[in-house]
Amino acid sequence: MQRFPSQNLRTPGPTPIPSDIVEAMTNPMINHRGPEFDTLLNKATEQLKQVFMTKNDLFILTASGTGSLEASIVNTLSPGDRVIAATAGAFGDRFVDMVEAYGADVKRMDFDWGGPIDPDDIRKALQAEPDIKAVLVTHNETSTGVTHPVEDIAKVVKGEFDKLLLVDAVSSLGCIPLPVDAWDCDMVGTASQKGFMIPPGLSFISVSERAWKAQQTAKMPRFYFDLSMAKSYLQTGQTPFTPNLSAMYGLSRALDVLLEEGMENVFGRHHTIAQLTRDGARDLGLELLVADEAYASNTVTAIKVPEGVDQKALMGKMRTEHNVVLAGGQGRMSADIFRIGHLGAVAKEDITEVMDALKIVLPEVGFNP
Amino acid sequence: MQRFPSQNLRTPGPTPIPSDIVEAMTNPMINHRGPEFDTLLNKATEQLKQVFMTKNDLFILTASGTGSLEASIVNTLSPGDRVIAATAGAFGDRFVDMVEAYGADVKRMDFDWGGPIDPDDIRKALQAEPDIKAVLVTHNETSTGVTHPVEDIAKVVKGEFDKLLLVDAVSSLGCIPLPVDAWDCDMVGTASQKGFMIPPGLSFISVSERAWKAQQTAKMPRFYFDLSMAKSYLQTGQTPFTPNLSAMYGLSRALDVLLEEGMENVFGRHHTIAQLTRDGARDLGLELLVADEAYASNTVTAIKVPEGVDQKALMGKMRTEHNVVLAGGQGRMSADIFRIGHLGAVAKEDITEVMDALKIVLPEVGFNP
Repeated sequence: MQRFPSQNLRTPGPTPIPSDIVEAMTNPMINHRGPEFDTLLNKATEQLKQVFMTKNDLFILTASGTGSLEASIVNTLSPGDRVIAATAGAFGDRFVDMVEAYGADVKRMDFDWGGPIDPDDIRKALQAEPDIKAVLVTHNETSTGVTHPVEDIAKVVKGEFDKLLLVDAVSSLGCIPLPVDAWDCDMVGTASQKGFMIPPGLSFISVSERAWKAQQTAKMPRFYFDLSMAKSYLQTGQTPFTPNLSAMYGLSRALDVLLEEGMENVFGRHHTIAQLTRDGARDLGLELLVADEAYASNTVTAIKVPEGVDQKALMGKMRTEHNVVLAGGQGRMSADIFRIGHLGAVAKEDITEVMDALKIVLPEVGFNP
Repeated sequence: MQRFPSQNLRTPGPTPIPSDIVEAMTNPMINHRGPEFDTLLNKATEQLKQVFMTKNDLFILTASGTGSLEASIVNTLSPGDRVIAATAGAFGDRFVDMVEAYGADVKRMDFDWGGPIDPDDIRKALQAEPDIKAVLVTHNETSTGVTHPVEDIAKVVKGEFDKLLLVDAVSSLGCIPLPVDAWDCDMVGTASQKGFMIPPGLSFISVSERAWKAQQTAKMPRFYFDLSMAKSYLQTGQTPFTPNLSAMYGLSRALDVLLEEGMENVFGRHHTIAQLTRDGARDLGLELLVADEAYASNTVTAIKVPEGVDQKALMGKMRTEHNVVLAGGQGRMSADIFRIGHLGAVAKEDITEVMDALKIVLPEVGFNP
């Protein structure tokens, strides 16, 4: 195959891979049922628990992030279970679709795209229906650049009503604080191609004691995503199915790097760069989708396409003339916004480059604020 | 992480990765919803169809091989459907477990481990129960080193009874002929870490018109493995969920190499090396598990652990003193056999090295034929 040129890849995952991680991924294959893999798997699992800030069980699955979310559903619920799924974007919608596909009786709660899920509304819904079994929420809605108030939602769902809480943390974990144990989240799923700076192809999920208890009676069918199988194999230093070894090598290196930097520093770095992005966009006269800064995501920023500007032309010029790859919108906002990813291995210079390019391209596509 | 030394990795997958494929995998990340990925995905999909010898739809899934087999089940069947699942090894058993987990009414047909599935027995079972909807078989049973007669089985299942045929081709496709259209197989699943010479983390599945028709009424729940979603995304040059990009890069290179060599040559090479392995083992006085050479697999050879020999000691010495990694048995044959993988990028010299090492180690662990 031809070689792809290096780009300023500003999609909210996959993210560029640092060269030391690329190098780690070139390690030769090993027997995934042998002693080297046992060591690799156990070390990565324990390090991931530090990033998740949890003592819960944690599993590495060979799948995209969606796989971990499907695992959170099928391991805790039965067809017909009444659940709340709160959504304010394309990934919230996907979580709804997923739990409906497996036959749950879903109370879908829609919130404005670009705004947060309101914990008070969740409280009212739980008060109105005592037979709700679980609440499904997205921590960071990648499609809008909103970080939902999971800490407050958890206080309601867990603290006041003691229901199961399933969290999509695909574009937050490792970038934005999500202390799984402190917030008492039952199942938290994420993916490799975001904060972990490695390619797509692995997902990670934590499982609380409460979730294991639910699993004992959960009747949704499962095999590839059956976490009790993952648990029994992990006890022998293995995975049930052949794991994505090259990504495991990259992960091992990435976890060393992240924990060496310290998660507080990693979170701080993401905050600084996100602020730079938001300020930079506003300085260009652009309007952010997320009006309330308190909910603005530190991993991805959604910017409204200015009136009269052709989003595709804007993104095309940025890519072909300035080597900057932006993301479009998703779902019903496909054409209304463009997004800048700033997670994983991203430096201030990468964002400055985006802003410099936008400054040139925006007037070319008809934006003159 | 520390670097792993290069080994003579003779597990039946993962297999060693040729250096040009390793190099291809170091390509930078790209936008999986952008034009570069569109080209990459379409080219690989069309090339894979050549390897599968099919005009059917074909999908690349981010999962281990088991994921593709789960996809074959949940996209064609409904809970309560009566199916035949024939097994003669650990992977046949896994296929049974999987279809049972999703609520099918399974007629399990057990055959001797080390021998083939008998097409006549399948015929009798189909005659006895006209309401059978599908037959599930393994093409190459990795745990025993048997290649089942799928061509003959297909003649019965498809030619005589017109039932759905779901095939586990994880350790055969790309190594042993499986002309999907000529044999009329409805769903055929395989994985990346075998004949394709790339790391684990992708699986491939072909879907016949007949299988699509079954999908319209199939009621098993599915989301991550829903192939109609994969189909609609493929039409836009995308996958529903973020794909394993680095493995896609490797795959693209591997497919160029395989098709350049020509599949007939690839199959011939596997046959030659398998024969070398079987002859070499017999020359050492060892007994092969598969008594009938007609069913001996060209991708993996199972050898009986000689009486009085400690299998773990044998494999340990091979690994630590001779840098040769063998596979143990699986399931109920865990301790009874050891296996030599000879698929993907394997040269005659690799097998000669194994035999030379066995010649030294076998007497050390008490084998004196």
